[in-house]
Formats: sequence, C-alpha cells, structure tokens
Amino acid sequence: MKTQNPDYREQVRAIFDKAPFIADLGLVLSDLGPGWCDTDLVVAPKHLQQEGYVHAGVQATMADHTAGGAAGTLVRSNEMVLTAEFKINLLRPALGDRLRCRATVLKPGRTLIVAESEVYAIRDGKEKLVAKATVTLAPVEKGK
Amino acid sequence: MKTQNPDYREQVRAIFDKAPFIADLGLVLSDLGPGWCDTDLVVAPKHLQQEGYVHAGVQATMADHTAGGAAGTLVRSNEMVLTAEFKINLLRPALGDRLRCRATVLKPGRTLIVAESEVYAIRDGKEKLVAKATVTLAPVEKGK
Amino acid sequence: MKTQNPDYREQVRAIFDKAPFIADLGLVLSDLGPGWCDTDLVVAPKHLQQEGYVHAGVQATMADHTAGGAAGTLVRSNEMVLTAEFKINLLRPALGDRLRCRATVLKPGRTLIVAESEVYAIRDGKEKLVAKATVTLAPVEKGK
Amino acid sequence: MKTQNPDYREQVRAIFDKAPFIADLGLVLSDLGPGWCDTDLVVAPKHLQQEGYVHAGVQATMADHTAGGAAGTLVRSNEMVLTAEFKINLLRPALGDRLRCRATVLKPGRTLIVAESEVYAIRDGKEKLVAKATVTLAPVEKGK
Repeated sequence: MKTQNPDYREQVRAIFDKAPFIADLGLVLSDLGPGWCDTDLVVAPKHLQQEGYVHAGVQATMADHTAGGAAGTLVRSNEMVLTAEFKINLLRPALGDRLRCRATVLKPGRTLIVAESEVYAIRDGKEKLVAKATVTLAPVEKGK
Repeated sequence: MKTQNPDYREQVRAIFDKAPFIADLGLVLSDLGPGWCDTDLVVAPKHLQQEGYVHAGVQATMADHTAGGAAGTLVRSNEMVLTAEFKINLLRPALGDRLRCRATVLKPGRTLIVAESEVYAIRDGKEKLVAKATVTLAPVEKGK
Repeated sequence: MKTQNPDYREQVRAIFDKAPFIADLGLVLSDLGPGWCDTDLVVAPKHLQQEGYVHAGVQATMADHTAGGAAGTLVRSNEMVLTAEFKINLLRPALGDRLRCRATVLKPGRTLIVAESEVYAIRDGKEKLVAKATVTLAPVEKGK
Repeated sequence: MKTQNPDYREQVRAIFDKAPFIADLGLVLSDLGPGWCDTDLVVAPKHLQQEGYVHAGVQATMADHTAGGAAGTLVRSNEMVLTAEFKINLLRPALGDRLRCRATVLKPGRTLIVAESEVYAIRDGKEKLVAKATVTLAPVEKGK
C-alpha cells in the first residue's frame, strides 16, 4: 500500500506517545509500515478480569488502537483517524505473559479505512490467536 | 425477565469487585436488576486518547463489562458469562466529566445471551449517547 | 430528526422501486418518516433455508435495505446512501407468515449515518423479535 | 482442521440443495474441505440494487451461507449449524459477471464456530475483494 505522508512513522508514533490511556495500559508500538502496525503488551495483574484472563476490554483496546496505527500510516500529514466502529470476536480465553497484535489495512479509502487486527497471547513461548477484530476508521482533518 | 439465581446481585457485584482491570479503570456498578445493569465512570486524564476524547477502548470495556453484568443477572448460581463477541459504534467524540452505561438483555438463552449497551457522556449536566454496542455472551459453568 | 429534502418520500420510494433484488424478494415499503422506515415481507417458500426457517440472508437484506430507507430520508436530494457495514444478530429461528422490519436512525451525520433495524416474525397473529442489526451507511453524491 | 463426520461432503451439499432461498438466488457450492467452503454466483439482473451494483443482501447471504458450509464440515453427523450473528463490511461497489466466496473457519468449537468469508467480484477476468464478513455459528442437534 502507498502512504501519502513521508513522515508517517513519526505521526503514528505520536498517537501512541500522546494517548494517556495507551501509556497507562502499557501498550507499546513495536513496528509499522505502510498499511500495517504491530504492538506488544506485557501482561500485568491489572489487565485481568475476574477469572484471571486478560479482560476483553484490554484486547479490544489493543485491536482498536493498533488498527488506528495501521490506518494512520496511510492518511495525509494534516489528517488523523477516528474509529467509527469495530467488532471483535474473543476466540479463546487470553492467558499469557504477553499479548501481541498485528493490524493490517484491508481497504484504504478517502472516507473510510477498514483494518483487521489479530491479537495473540504468548504463553510458555507459544503463540495463540485469542481475538480478531474488524475496525472501520474515518480519516478526519486535524484540529477540526 | 426472570432470574434463576436469588443471589444474582452478589454474583454480579463479584464480577465488578474481582476484576482488576475494572477496578483499575474505575468502573463502578451503580444499579442492576434482572436483565439489566448500570455503571458509572468518573473520567480521568488517564482515560483519554491523543485528541483528549475518552479512548474507544475505555468505552468498549464499559460496554462489554456492563453487558456482562446484565447477562450475569440471568444465569444460574454455578454459571458465569464470557463474552463471545461484541460490536461497538462510536457515534460521537466522547467528551465529559463522567460516562454512564446501561446494558439491557435483548435475548436471554441457555447457550447465548445477547445484550445491548448504551454509553452516555455527561458534560455540563447534559447527557449524550456516545456509543452503542451489541454483545453476545456465553454462559459457562464456573471452574470449567 | 430533520430532513433536508422536501421530497424525501419519493426519493426513498425510488430505492425500493428501482432495486431489482428487493422487488424479486417481495420486500415492500410500508411507511416512513424523517429518520425511520418500515417494511413488510409476505413469507413464501422461496425465502426459507434448509430447516424451514426464513434464511438469515433474507432477514439481513430486509435489515440492510430498511436501514437504507431510514437513512435515505435524511440526506440531500442530490445524495444517496450506500451501506458501509452491518452486523446482525439472529435471535430466534424466524418462523411466520410475515416479517416486519422497522429501522431507526441512531445517529445522523454528513459522513456516516448509523441506523438500527429490528426484524419481527408474525405467526398466528403474534409478533416476535427475530433479528436486530446495526447498519453504518455513507451518504454519497448521486452519479459519482 | 479435523472433521468428525466422514460424510461431511454430503451433509454440506444438503444445506445447499435443500435451502430454497439459496437455489432461488443461484448460489452454487463449488468446492469444500475440512474447515473451508467455496461458492459461486452468476450475477443476474435480479441480484442488483438501485445503482446497478450487486445488493448488499446478496453478498451477505453468500457470506453467511458459505460460512455455514465451512462450519458444517466440522460438526458431527447428528448436528447442523445455525448462524448466531454476522458482521459484513462492504468494501467496494460489487460490479461483475460473477461473485465468488471463500469461507474459512477461524476457530472451531463445540458451542460456537467462528468463520470468515471473503466475497470477490469477477469482472473482465479480474477479481476484486468486495466484502468481508465474520460469522459466528452454533452447532445444534438436528431435529431439536
């Protein structure tokens, strides 16, 4: 996919650095390129729900924000992306020391960008797909 | 709707009290009855994304967990509910001092429970619908 | 909700009259107003799936097209709406002589319109909610 | 993926042969294996919406039924699958002489099966992804 912004890396880094909820959660941008983004999360006790699994809300935040990173690589320098909607399937109980997410743009566009996010739990060195999301994002002019 | 568990209030309170991510987020159970659940969140800087709105992940967590509360009022005492999937539409930028969520069960069931969650942002005393979610939950036996 | 098109009734009628798949299915526009639309379908053998229920695809078509009708009441005279995505929960097996759908706009907008559709099956004079959908639509200029 | 039914091919063929809506639409099972299913549709005027594109309802039916075929390859001989919910993104206007759909099971399960369906439009010999769906299906005992 083609980016329209030579500084897309800095722009996407900023949506990780400047989002307090993402910093608080501990979600880290690990790699990115035109149309895709990878993130990591070291699982801590605070991420869990009542049964000891990683909370669906943590997985959803990761899927959504990483999709925002992937879509953010494709918009113009005066634009940002906002999530219009997403759907996530929680496929297995998320157990592990770390979560990893890869988001990929399925369809770029001027009005809407559709991305998919896969969330993997890593436990004892083995990686399992625990959630998959489809995210619809809208590019909007900054400061509007 | 009919509950099958006379102690449903305690059971649902427990999924709020025992979920570290929910305590960390500051999500509070405010009221509940058979087939519905209400929650509140005092918005803090840590809940925001890069533009100063409440992060979609916070809204999603609230919608999901409150739906879990609503569904939890309907299951047997030896059961709990797990989210199978959800879809959320972010209707407006979420700006406010507080978020409020009401979840209502649309369809109870032995295998699947479908609930809807509405998230409202309260700003200057005015309440606006900022997100709406549909959540599919599966009752499962505890300890399985 | 406010319409921007005094001829919105004719415009929405046209998207029912001019859509061959809708005519072939037998889906009929029954009533509409700013931000909402109602449709009816007389169930015929051709609408069924292998178990004798109305096929999920029929319910989905009804939910989608009726949402398009509801959204269509709100756009300008030089615009039409296209579905960007939808999600439907099939709540109960759809059995009946007739299906009825009501779609309501949850959030109007210049770029995106979000509507909800409820599908009811009518059997022996009793009406049951069989499906509920959330539909995201994009207003686009005609002839583009 | 492993099938539990040596006659899975016949069983899945039956859900195509015995579903009147699928026959009426012209949706044809083209190939299948454990955990996947392919279908074809020759586009006719009756499949179109008001702008001349294939109706979203046709694409949704194809995505849903083909996912049912993929999930159907994995259930026991005394079971069938029913769609609990699905979400579809319409990525591009669907224009073409033929549609092709491939559904793949993302997560098998005793209670829920999650599948993904991709719909392609074929025009002038070129294939384009026009829609993608995520489908949640529930295995149920036949005759219940």
